Amino acid sequence: MSEFGFIASIAESFASLPSNGFEGIGDDCAVLPVGNGESLLFTSDMLNEGVHFLRHAASPAEIGAKSLMVNLSDIAAMGGRPVATLLSIALPADVGEDWVAEFMRGYRDVAERFGVALVGGDTTRSQSGVVVDVTAIGRAADDCIKRRRDARAGDVIMVGDLLGASAEGLRDILAGRLDTATADVHRNPQAQICEGEWLGRQRCVHAMMDISDGVASDLVHILRASAVGAVVETTHIPAYAELENAVCGGEDYKLLFTVAADLADDLRLRFEKEFGYPIFPIGRITADNAGTISWLRSGEQIYPSWHGFTHF
Amino acid sequence: MSEFGFIASIAESFASLPSNGFEGIGDDCAVLPVGNGESLLFTSDMLNEGVHFLRHAASPAEIGAKSLMVNLSDIAAMGGRPVATLLSIALPADVGEDWVAEFMRGYRDVAERFGVALVGGDTTRSQSGVVVDVTAIGRAADDCIKRRRDARAGDVIMVGDLLGASAEGLRDILAGRLDTATADVHRNPQAQICEGEWLGRQRCVHAMMDISDGVASDLVHILRASAVGAVVETTHIPAYAELENAVCGGEDYKLLFTVAADLADDLRLRFEKEFGYPIFPIGRITADNAGTISWLRSGEQIYPSWHGFTHF
Repeated sequence: MSEFGFIASIAESFASLPSNGFEGIGDDCAVLPVGNGESLLFTSDMLNEGVHFLRHAASPAEIGAKSLMVNLSDIAAMGGRPVATLLSIALPADVGEDWVAEFMRGYRDVAERFGVALVGGDTTRSQSGVVVDVTAIGRAADDCIKRRRDARAGDVIMVGDLLGASAEGLRDILAGRLDTATADVHRNPQAQICEGEWLGRQRCVHAMMDISDGVASDLVHILRASAVGAVVETTHIPAYAELENAVCGGEDYKLLFTVAADLADDLRLRFEKEFGYPIFPIGRITADNAGTISWLRSGEQIYPSWHGFTHF
Repeated sequence: MSEFGFIASIAESFASLPSNGFEGIGDDCAVLPVGNGESLLFTSDMLNEGVHFLRHAASPAEIGAKSLMVNLSDIAAMGGRPVATLLSIALPADVGEDWVAEFMRGYRDVAERFGVALVGGDTTRSQSGVVVDVTAIGRAADDCIKRRRDARAGDVIMVGDLLGASAEGLRDILAGRLDTATADVHRNPQAQICEGEWLGRQRCVHAMMDISDGVASDLVHILRASAVGAVVETTHIPAYAELENAVCGGEDYKLLFTVAADLADDLRLRFEKEFGYPIFPIGRITADNAGTISWLRSGEQIYPSWHGFTHF
């Protein structure tokens, strides 16, 4: 079963239980309204040695920083501000106190940068590799929360930064080239945390998520949730280098969002003024072809066999 | 470094970061007041194959149920009502769909019994064993939350049920005796979820926590947090069989709490009327000997070398 199939089957099996006020599985975070026009957001991401990182190919501080960053990315992807985390970590016997101290230094650096508290967690032994699971908690005004289901026909589809560098870095790392610029990007992803919160406050932004499995896969989540289609102009995709890595590569942790067409240019100007770098329109949401991306190359339809990155 | 030393060093290193309204590390859960006299509670517990369970010695449904139960126990231990969980699970290649379906059935059975929603999580591959990390979210009225720091000199110390069966079950399991009554208790802990919420509403209950590492270890957390001492009469400890397992054994997941002395007998009567089984007074909180338990046997002081169960 695929990861998405597994999640869908769980969501279905638990659907008959009380929701207790939570909006659950289906977005980057669960949402709990707490009154006064505010909600809390919740997300968990697990990183396993040998699957998400190689202990010989990343410093403990980098692993600590990345463990937190990928969770904050999910909060930002819904327009929230991260406020706290719980950290569970399983440590094998060959991991010493120095390794743990460096891991925590990397984790703390990111926590400090974004003003996030560490409020709980667990530490256990591991019979095998290092396992890290982080739960992040965010806050957002109810009317700033961006969901996958809110894309509208006519919206401009935008991505928040260059794509594909992380995938190229992973390829370098797996080939033993640990010191390339893209290997560094893969080990030290810079998610768009403040940018996500800022985009949350823009009413012209409709749907949003972060890109963790590639546009080819992640955009489909928005299309299915919103019951719309998309036309994407591949020459407009801001690829770090190879287009296929930009479309299908994992772990970019950049934002993917849709914007009311008449306000899209204004948003681009204001974003660049606020953050000093551009965002990129890559296509349009369509009323037809729900759940499907039509790919263009300079306006001509193409039929690539692109799939997203698979973690599972 | 011990688990408690590790947690203390992390708590210290993060103390200078903003709390964002959270009451953090130091109790069974983190606490976030959300207004209208209510707070949310947060806790995470990780279970690792080979450390917390043996895949050949427990059914997948039992592992699923226990993963959730131990987290709900932490919510109940502060007087809260569990409302939702996030479940992260790492699965090795030799775990099939049937195993996962049975795991989820056990998890769902407990979730249904206590009306808890599943609102998020993560699924990943594992290069080694099964790893499960659950974050549980609870709710409580602010004035029902029980903390470790609120024990008062003169309080009666109580435990919520018989102790030590889980430790004896673990001994059986490690000796290959999987079908004993206590092995079943170890695999299927019955935490005092509804009892904890009920005790939360009793103003005469001052400090509370759950017993996961044995009274000898866990009571010291209450004593240190409250800056008080304790005298415990060992003949009053409700041991399932051996006293040492009741005092030092792990994973009982029963409640440990202190009660205003003049209302303790009344509470015992009302608890038994409500739940159909008794709670047990085992000693008194003292103003002197802060952080220390004095052990008595039929009134005579004894000096056992008892330590709590160590997971780390």
